[in-house]
Amino acid sequence: MQAMGFESFERILGGVCAPEGFLASGVSCGIKGDGLLDLALVYTEKPAAAAGVYTTNSMKAAPVVFSSERLSRGTARAVVVNSGIANSMTGRRGARDAEVMAAAVESALDIPEGQALVASTGRIGEYLPMEKIEKGIQAAVQDLNPGGNTDAVKAIMTTDTYPKELAAEMEIGGRVVRLGAMAKGSGMIHPNMATMIAVITTDIDIDVETMRNWLGRAVEWSFNRISVDGDMSTNDTVFMMANGAAFPGGYEMSGEEADLFFETLCWLTGSLAVALVKDGEGATKLVRVVVNGAIDDAEAVLVARAIGNSNLVKCAFHGGLPAWGRIAAAVGSSGVPVSTENFSVVIGECEVFSHGVILEFDAAEVESAVNRDEVEITVDIGRGGGSAYFMTTDLSPEYVEFNAQDKS
Amino acid sequence: MQAMGFESFERILGGVCAPEGFLASGVSCGIKGDGLLDLALVYTEKPAAAAGVYTTNSMKAAPVVFSSERLSRGTARAVVVNSGIANSMTGRRGARDAEVMAAAVESALDIPEGQALVASTGRIGEYLPMEKIEKGIQAAVQDLNPGGNTDAVKAIMTTDTYPKELAAEMEIGGRVVRLGAMAKGSGMIHPNMATMIAVITTDIDIDVETMRNWLGRAVEWSFNRISVDGDMSTNDTVFMMANGAAFPGGYEMSGEEADLFFETLCWLTGSLAVALVKDGEGATKLVRVVVNGAIDDAEAVLVARAIGNSNLVKCAFHGGLPAWGRIAAAVGSSGVPVSTENFSVVIGECEVFSHGVILEFDAAEVESAVNRDEVEITVDIGRGGGSAYFMTTDLSPEYVEFNAQDKS
Repeated sequence: MQAMGFESFERILGGVCAPEGFLASGVSCGIKGDGLLDLALVYTEKPAAAAGVYTTNSMKAAPVVFSSERLSRGTARAVVVNSGIANSMTGRRGARDAEVMAAAVESALDIPEGQALVASTGRIGEYLPMEKIEKGIQAAVQDLNPGGNTDAVKAIMTTDTYPKELAAEMEIGGRVVRLGAMAKGSGMIHPNMATMIAVITTDIDIDVETMRNWLGRAVEWSFNRISVDGDMSTNDTVFMMANGAAFPGGYEMSGEEADLFFETLCWLTGSLAVALVKDGEGATKLVRVVVNGAIDDAEAVLVARAIGNSNLVKCAFHGGLPAWGRIAAAVGSSGVPVSTENFSVVIGECEVFSHGVILEFDAAEVESAVNRDEVEITVDIGRGGGSAYFMTTDLSPEYVEFNAQDKS
Repeated sequence: MQAMGFESFERILGGVCAPEGFLASGVSCGIKGDGLLDLALVYTEKPAAAAGVYTTNSMKAAPVVFSSERLSRGTARAVVVNSGIANSMTGRRGARDAEVMAAAVESALDIPEGQALVASTGRIGEYLPMEKIEKGIQAAVQDLNPGGNTDAVKAIMTTDTYPKELAAEMEIGGRVVRLGAMAKGSGMIHPNMATMIAVITTDIDIDVETMRNWLGRAVEWSFNRISVDGDMSTNDTVFMMANGAAFPGGYEMSGEEADLFFETLCWLTGSLAVALVKDGEGATKLVRVVVNGAIDDAEAVLVARAIGNSNLVKCAFHGGLPAWGRIAAAVGSSGVPVSTENFSVVIGECEVFSHGVILEFDAAEVESAVNRDEVEITVDIGRGGGSAYFMTTDLSPEYVEFNAQDKS
């Protein structure tokens, strides 16, 4: 991805409620207990074009199967998300529960059938307490309000330590246009807990095919380039709704306007992705991996993932070790035929290995680079012009301790 | 692999020196310091057919490249192994160093050029101290003796906490035939330390093509089915030498005899693989994963590896959590299109999920199964008749602490 100039948008408050015509709420329906918020609703007063991106895990949770089928029509009015139980590995009963959740939202909001989307996050292998969920949906509909984003973003959290929402506004076609989003949880988390969930809202006027394309690319460059532990959830879901409220008469963006909107979307998803990694379980560092010199970008992603998912590399960064040999071994195990003769590694600003030769680098400088809160690794595999980046964390004893305990 | 009857061989002492005509030694050449043994030599008095299996990492260390090229001729008289430095990522200088090591062995043993094999294990990205290595080779040749296996196996250790050697004898063609082996280190280990190394010896008479085939299959079913941390070394090497000393006049094995020998070889490599996993860094449990119902065995291996390399699954086993949902998520992320409707999970003896339905299992029984020293997981993916097993460890905070410190 090329560097982008973001002069033309401004960050604003309001999360998913920032765009015109969106309301939200977050309530406690009793899955988490202790009065914790665990059911979120996002609603658009006007019909919206809608798209989704989902986990590639073949064991897709019931709400993922349900919502992805439903979104083939490309429109939606509401998204309901519960946290605490993922409705994953729940078979036909789980499929029915996802349907019932959607129907309850449609009935309470008095919107047409087929206009509610569903996502769940939490423990795998448990059935949803449907009575609580249905009461929660009633309450969430009652509570819908233009400042409901702050409760909604808390209600989707599982092991997140802080809520993650963002919004931006820009001028397009002489009008103020807004983008908002909320997200939770990076990668697989906690005892049987799964999932990253994000909901993106906008009041732009956009056709669903374009939105699908842009959302897919924005997710590929953000949420698909992060890892906390290499595990892939059964529930990962990103929804986007565009209600066109900024343009009551409709509007077709020019090329430059489209670029600005897409860049703002990428800034939004990219910033949330960084927040998810930084809040990863046990994470004490953000590690940015850049791979250059691949045959194409897809090959670069393979190599970047191999580095970003290597336990040994992640342990080294936790300990502040300049373990470039582990990076080389991870690259070599990626399946991409990299030769040591064409390989180089830069840690921070310091080149440590180049084209088959161990360089005489300043060890103190390299150690200082791996001891920072944000570590930068750049490798070149000397095969072509493809490149990619990937963001990961260190691996800490706290991660293991956290995931070896049943705190649910 | 089918269950095999091993009635017809007996375990004996002697490791790599158990077969007739093999001598060994282990000396301290000064890489590790403190007088620790760090250079091993295995020598056959008679010419031997020889084969090797190597890491599939594209960043192969210098001794791997050197020995694999050399073994294209299929014969060897000696194997030299140093520990402490892996001679990996060392470019042309490392390639020369591997050559010099082999030449020093050939010269000191007065054997023809091309008959010495080389392996190295230890830190990546450091050059070998060749003066020490060459003096060590002289000393190792002087020390060669029929009981040298006990020093040799210590001299190849890096972070192993105990030496691993095995031998067996059986009757073939009216003669006693022996197989011996030593091995070290499971998976990637310690700051920049790499590698499993194994050396297998036998006094059977066997042609090199058959030996390559059998060694490849025995390695596939043992060392290729274990993981400590999912990382793949740049140095993994398994050598096998067969000197025919049990049959001075030559001998061609019958089908039954060949089966017995191959089964004994599989017992040897399989037992060493278990020892490597059990001695994995920070490991407190052995986890045996069995996958049934795959389209073919190769697909089953993919699924078994995905379970065995999942950090979340391994953390759960460390904590004794019956986290079958994590197992399902790992299966779903394997790339194999498994449907929850055709999926089942058995933990220990207890089926917890079957064909889309969460079963009413005895939670105490499942918890007891995951709290044992050896945990058994069986999944069925309902696609065909392929199966595979995989052995892994739990993931402990100690693993992370160990690999975040520079103890080298």
